[in-house]
Amino acid sequence: MSESYIFSKNYINGLLSESSETCLVSRLSKKNTPLPPRVPGGTSVSTDAIRKRLLLAALSKMEEDMLIDPQTLDLKEKYQKNIENFIGTVKVPLGLIGPLRVNGVHAQGDYYIPLATSEAALVASYHRGTLLISEAGGCASVLLSEGVSRAPGFVFHNLADAGLFVKWCIDHLEDFKEAAHSTTSHGSLRNLKVNVDGNHVYLIFEYHTGDASGQNMVTFATEAVIRFILLYSPVKPVHHFIEANLSGDKKASTQSFHSVRGKKVTAEVQIPRHLIEKYLHTTPELMVKYWNISAVGGVLSGCIGTQGHYANGLAALYLASGQDVACVAESAIGVTRIELTKDDMLYASVTLPNIMVGTIGGGTKLPSQQACLKIMGLSGDQKARSFAEVCAALALAGELSIQGAICAHHFAKAHHRLARTKKIVNKA
Amino acid sequence: MSESYIFSKNYINGLLSESSETCLVSRLSKKNTPLPPRVPGGTSVSTDAIRKRLLLAALSKMEEDMLIDPQTLDLKEKYQKNIENFIGTVKVPLGLIGPLRVNGVHAQGDYYIPLATSEAALVASYHRGTLLISEAGGCASVLLSEGVSRAPGFVFHNLADAGLFVKWCIDHLEDFKEAAHSTTSHGSLRNLKVNVDGNHVYLIFEYHTGDASGQNMVTFATEAVIRFILLYSPVKPVHHFIEANLSGDKKASTQSFHSVRGKKVTAEVQIPRHLIEKYLHTTPELMVKYWNISAVGGVLSGCIGTQGHYANGLAALYLASGQDVACVAESAIGVTRIELTKDDMLYASVTLPNIMVGTIGGGTKLPSQQACLKIMGLSGDQKARSFAEVCAALALAGELSIQGAICAHHFAKAHHRLARTKKIVNKA
Amino acid sequence: MSESYIFSKNYINGLLSESSETCLVSRLSKKNTPLPPRVPGGTSVSTDAIRKRLLLAALSKMEEDMLIDPQTLDLKEKYQKNIENFIGTVKVPLGLIGPLRVNGVHAQGDYYIPLATSEAALVASYHRGTLLISEAGGCASVLLSEGVSRAPGFVFHNLADAGLFVKWCIDHLEDFKEAAHSTTSHGSLRNLKVNVDGNHVYLIFEYHTGDASGQNMVTFATEAVIRFILLYSPVKPVHHFIEANLSGDKKASTQSFHSVRGKKVTAEVQIPRHLIEKYLHTTPELMVKYWNISAVGGVLSGCIGTQGHYANGLAALYLASGQDVACVAESAIGVTRIELTKDDMLYASVTLPNIMVGTIGGGTKLPSQQACLKIMGLSGDQKARSFAEVCAALALAGELSIQGAICAHHFAKAHHRLARTKKIVNKA
Amino acid sequence: MSESYIFSKNYINGLLSESSETCLVSRLSKKNTPLPPRVPGGTSVSTDAIRKRLLLAALSKMEEDMLIDPQTLDLKEKYQKNIENFIGTVKVPLGLIGPLRVNGVHAQGDYYIPLATSEAALVASYHRGTLLISEAGGCASVLLSEGVSRAPGFVFHNLADAGLFVKWCIDHLEDFKEAAHSTTSHGSLRNLKVNVDGNHVYLIFEYHTGDASGQNMVTFATEAVIRFILLYSPVKPVHHFIEANLSGDKKASTQSFHSVRGKKVTAEVQIPRHLIEKYLHTTPELMVKYWNISAVGGVLSGCIGTQGHYANGLAALYLASGQDVACVAESAIGVTRIELTKDDMLYASVTLPNIMVGTIGGGTKLPSQQACLKIMGLSGDQKARSFAEVCAALALAGELSIQGAICAHHFAKAHHRLARTKKIVNKA
Repeated sequence: MSESYIFSKNYINGLLSESSETCLVSRLSKKNTPLPPRVPGGTSVSTDAIRKRLLLAALSKMEEDMLIDPQTLDLKEKYQKNIENFIGTVKVPLGLIGPLRVNGVHAQGDYYIPLATSEAALVASYHRGTLLISEAGGCASVLLSEGVSRAPGFVFHNLADAGLFVKWCIDHLEDFKEAAHSTTSHGSLRNLKVNVDGNHVYLIFEYHTGDASGQNMVTFATEAVIRFILLYSPVKPVHHFIEANLSGDKKASTQSFHSVRGKKVTAEVQIPRHLIEKYLHTTPELMVKYWNISAVGGVLSGCIGTQGHYANGLAALYLASGQDVACVAESAIGVTRIELTKDDMLYASVTLPNIMVGTIGGGTKLPSQQACLKIMGLSGDQKARSFAEVCAALALAGELSIQGAICAHHFAKAHHRLARTKKIVNKA
Repeated sequence: MSESYIFSKNYINGLLSESSETCLVSRLSKKNTPLPPRVPGGTSVSTDAIRKRLLLAALSKMEEDMLIDPQTLDLKEKYQKNIENFIGTVKVPLGLIGPLRVNGVHAQGDYYIPLATSEAALVASYHRGTLLISEAGGCASVLLSEGVSRAPGFVFHNLADAGLFVKWCIDHLEDFKEAAHSTTSHGSLRNLKVNVDGNHVYLIFEYHTGDASGQNMVTFATEAVIRFILLYSPVKPVHHFIEANLSGDKKASTQSFHSVRGKKVTAEVQIPRHLIEKYLHTTPELMVKYWNISAVGGVLSGCIGTQGHYANGLAALYLASGQDVACVAESAIGVTRIELTKDDMLYASVTLPNIMVGTIGGGTKLPSQQACLKIMGLSGDQKARSFAEVCAALALAGELSIQGAICAHHFAKAHHRLARTKKIVNKA
Repeated sequence: MSESYIFSKNYINGLLSESSETCLVSRLSKKNTPLPPRVPGGTSVSTDAIRKRLLLAALSKMEEDMLIDPQTLDLKEKYQKNIENFIGTVKVPLGLIGPLRVNGVHAQGDYYIPLATSEAALVASYHRGTLLISEAGGCASVLLSEGVSRAPGFVFHNLADAGLFVKWCIDHLEDFKEAAHSTTSHGSLRNLKVNVDGNHVYLIFEYHTGDASGQNMVTFATEAVIRFILLYSPVKPVHHFIEANLSGDKKASTQSFHSVRGKKVTAEVQIPRHLIEKYLHTTPELMVKYWNISAVGGVLSGCIGTQGHYANGLAALYLASGQDVACVAESAIGVTRIELTKDDMLYASVTLPNIMVGTIGGGTKLPSQQACLKIMGLSGDQKARSFAEVCAALALAGELSIQGAICAHHFAKAHHRLARTKKIVNKA
Repeated sequence: MSESYIFSKNYINGLLSESSETCLVSRLSKKNTPLPPRVPGGTSVSTDAIRKRLLLAALSKMEEDMLIDPQTLDLKEKYQKNIENFIGTVKVPLGLIGPLRVNGVHAQGDYYIPLATSEAALVASYHRGTLLISEAGGCASVLLSEGVSRAPGFVFHNLADAGLFVKWCIDHLEDFKEAAHSTTSHGSLRNLKVNVDGNHVYLIFEYHTGDASGQNMVTFATEAVIRFILLYSPVKPVHHFIEANLSGDKKASTQSFHSVRGKKVTAEVQIPRHLIEKYLHTTPELMVKYWNISAVGGVLSGCIGTQGHYANGLAALYLASGQDVACVAESAIGVTRIELTKDDMLYASVTLPNIMVGTIGGGTKLPSQQACLKIMGLSGDQKARSFAEVCAALALAGELSIQGAICAHHFAKAHHRLARTKKIVNKA
């Protein structure tokens, strides 16, 4: 946000060429004029409720139809538990890629993967990466760890009270587990970490959440633990808050590399030189050189881990499969490595410490999202770990394809061709 | 990713209770069995192309219909420029909130805002926040700066060559501008920064991109500059890459606070005590206390900036309005502040250095996304700056609502009520 | 390092106004002219050895005397185990402050603290802070945790090998402990963490190191563990390295907030309004307001934690007491908080996760350093935990004093008065 | 600071085995017993003042002599401007290394370098690194940029006022420069950056400070600018603070990679294979492999940049030469790279964005420190840029030596030999 005065000056002068200072100040001031009607809130999806809300949207009939099309109207009850103030659906184009051969601890086989995005070239790029990996015999992908945390905060009068509280909590972990388990059959409290900062105490509760992504599950379980604490702790906190921002919820944070948040997966592949040349039109040596300059570039930019980027693939897959897309903010971190092996293979790996996915709950039961999970054979119970391994394999495919494109000087061209061409040749 | 051995042990033993070590190793090894058919790639959206791809998806007819519904089939050409390997659309439920009164430099007025999400309670929570802000007279929201960068990397034999190259580049900025402008009528090259690391040179080109989000625009322009460099520079780089990972593209990075990436917006509101009580069922004092513990919590977690989280609102709005959802990875950072003023008002502000939005290009022309932009009156030229100010206002609404819920101990309850209730009462 | 071209241009033009491009390039190129004599290396402190080395220093007799003064010459054997290529000693001025009343779990009482520095005003500022704390009844200071880690890295052919290796290691923790303990009577291996990144495995060994700072101790113990691993592990690593940069050794890192490095201490004090006015000439309200803007400033700057700064006090005390001053790089991180309590007291706390101190070993036995430890009564066994609590108390004193000076607009004045005055009045 | 409950439990139980809970709480509580005498403060170095202070130190005569030895007593006036509450000096052993051949833009030639430390093996390790570089023809070292900033903060009623203030400031940069220059003949205000966060404005003033490290200089100059602002700005800030924590002062921060703090230097060397074998007893290939795992290790640990560590060398040189050792906290960040070139050379580079050194002012005039600067020929005017280039060259020597030791499995051995040996053979 620190802007050199030169550029600030240009911008400010631009503004002042259109409005006076007084006028700009008045734009920023509070306005007490009456407000237009509120959107009628709530979970109702009745035709009437939808109509009343859409009235405020002030769209043409044709535009309304783009939101509340016949199928959406027909299936509106299916959306009721996932949204309030419902007015329809947004449609995101979907492409299919693959097969992607995954040799995982949990995921095994050749996956066709649906990706939802509006960014031209994204699907084509990941498609290329998956084919490269598959022709090389597939990638190993290993779920290393899993868990979701909730981090309530407690305020005390002083350090001594904070210390007594921590001591009591540590002695009552078994009670906490019992309280937590009373709220869920899928989840389990696995670990407690303690963080004392003066008279503030953060308790970090780490849970296993089964096949659900689990954010709500850990909230409810932690709420039950807090009730137990308030009832029985000999030292009462002055204030308590169910989440005090140490869980990393929906924010990229460095603690992902040191604790548990979602699923931690690492994937690797070894690719013969001729496949690099065939698919990526470049050499292993140049890929390694590019990794050198770009891995350091990531470090200099202050990102968390260092990678090309995982966000494109994760967002497109999360979106297609009913995951919480906001979690891309926390999931899209990690480390990519690219090396040349002694036997002349390109070695590439990705490690993502923070994949937040579930195969039950959340948006996974929505009609089109459920179909996408079915394409991968990853719908329902006992599938979340496999899904996480597929996510890492997909991220690996993306890294190879985009870094290959940059090495072959095709990066701009690919976007040119796919994003701008007036005439699109139908190849299929 | 650092896991204490105790938990790793449990996980590994769990795996070994189901498979032997040998079996696990064989799961991870390369497989040379023949691959199933590739997805027929390309940009074609012909019925035949779609059919051939869907064949591999192996869905039931009913599941296929969830992807390639009649409206989607009817409008398939509309999606052609935004996707490859097309097989239909994913439908994400959409809720409408507001009005949100924004007193911006660019945005002025009362906005109804469409949010697409599958997370229950999200829309209701943001709705509450917008009504609170609006009843307080609206929030100020100011676009502070804008720009998008592309950061090519150049490798030299040694520092001396790198130095000569930098000197030449700095002398030819006007030529670079000309080369860049030859590729775009909307964008303009605004600044050049130089980063030398041993024999590596990163050039950071900063552009204005008008009303487009601009990622492609800056790629094409930078490609033109590189062509100029390769043609005329007296010192030839050994290697060059169009992006060397110093632009922050789709990754949360600390450099956002110090340079230009997208749009930097700050928003603030001052709210009388009685409105905090009425809408949030808590007090300004407790909100301030919570900010203390949660802002420090964010710092301890190692996130970038410190905030409750902006990801939910940004992802839902980006998705509804055809923005690149992968950019949530970089946009969802910033600083939230909450204080008590001398005249007994709650002061709250958010600052987001990295909002990546456009009102033309990308997915903004897709049918349902275009309708969503129309709801806000933010479609087309001269609207991107206003849109960014609305994004910050929305983020502020979300922060107030979620932090209020935590203070009032309603956080878990809200999710309970909205996510789990079997019987949903239709209120509307 | 990213410099705007405008400033790079000025600098480069400045250089070129003095030398030609060719001349600059030749300055940077390798020189194969014969080298002057090497410094005669080694641990000898014989007069002859010193003389031969000083010959190369080419100093006047008077300058030599500043390094190898009579006392230093007399005590030279005392320095022999702490230095190689000995030529004398550097003398750093020492000031005494206090008393500082510390109400710690380990440290109890009123401490006089020696600080070695050449920065004017530093000692006076910390002195003021200690008196303020002491008059308020002292500060609580609590050692929360302790440990030092060493993080060897292992390279494997692939993930499967890495996984087998991790499994074997986890099963042999007791053997590792035994191997580690064979090397030390003071230290003990406490925990093992595992970090897998593709075919790389990092093992993080966490030790207790008694009253020694312990960097060497953990190195020797880890070396013994590695010997055991190489001898018995069924999967041999392709490469192994005793430290692979995950221990945080002498570098500020965010992992300090999530794992163990040295000693983690938190300290707090509650100060009545009139003492703030008397010592700091400002108000609690302004101190809180300043904390708001400066804590966020720290966040925006991308520092680790957020604080005024602890480096001055830690460096001066480490230096005086024979600690490893290089560890200031890792120790000077943490969080400072300042709040107003309901009963009108200023609450202030500091939390430092990474204090690296010992009261035996290292430089603690050097003559003047040992005297400094004696002043505090913190020399020898069973004193390291107390020492760490005193460090945090000192950091708290520094934060109060410097932030008070900024609030009272005395910050510049204090430096003016002490750093620049020609005539210094003798007050003592 | 987040500790797993298991380890917290052990620690707490340990405490409780020695004291009761009640006893521990009472240790932490305020004590209102009378305080012992205060150290008589002030800048006096009279024998009487020293004696009165030392009385409180309660040392034996022999211990006192270790602090206030005859030479120190004789030269006490020399220390008066650099310390308050003077009681003597701390003596740190000093070793000499070199020659180190530096092929810099500013530094040219073969340097003998004095290092002050109490860590055994440090001097020997850096000595080895310098000889290796020198025999390879020396290293290139280039000062890329320089500057020191001060970042005052201003609080306003609201964003509109903040905006008007920024506009006015930007229009008055020339006046600010004049005000700044009235306070210093060496320094100059070079750039202004602006950071708006709600109703907070941070102004970042960047200065050139000539051959002084310059922290005081920029404080005095900024104070003058603030006086100008308070006098003439049409919008008065509610509060103002001379430093609001965005200057990076004495804290490692990511902004160092994006703005100016001290001196930014990059150094590189190319070393033939046989010299790696001769000096480091390892191969270029293994050095590269080690860089891979350790550079990623640094990234995973969340350090700023990625490096082995620069802190040892910088601290020892800063200490020897009268620099501010507390600045090691900010200086010891950066990026090390190690690669194999096509012509079979080991390429190594370091880049340090934040070297804080001066050759005049601060502690540079102290007797032993001045002698150390003389050894390097870097005392006085026009030498600071050269000194910074020598610092980077030294850091490069250290990285090569320590990483070589790790590759050759000599890391533990070197410390063993030098730190623990009972009988030390005199080689010199």
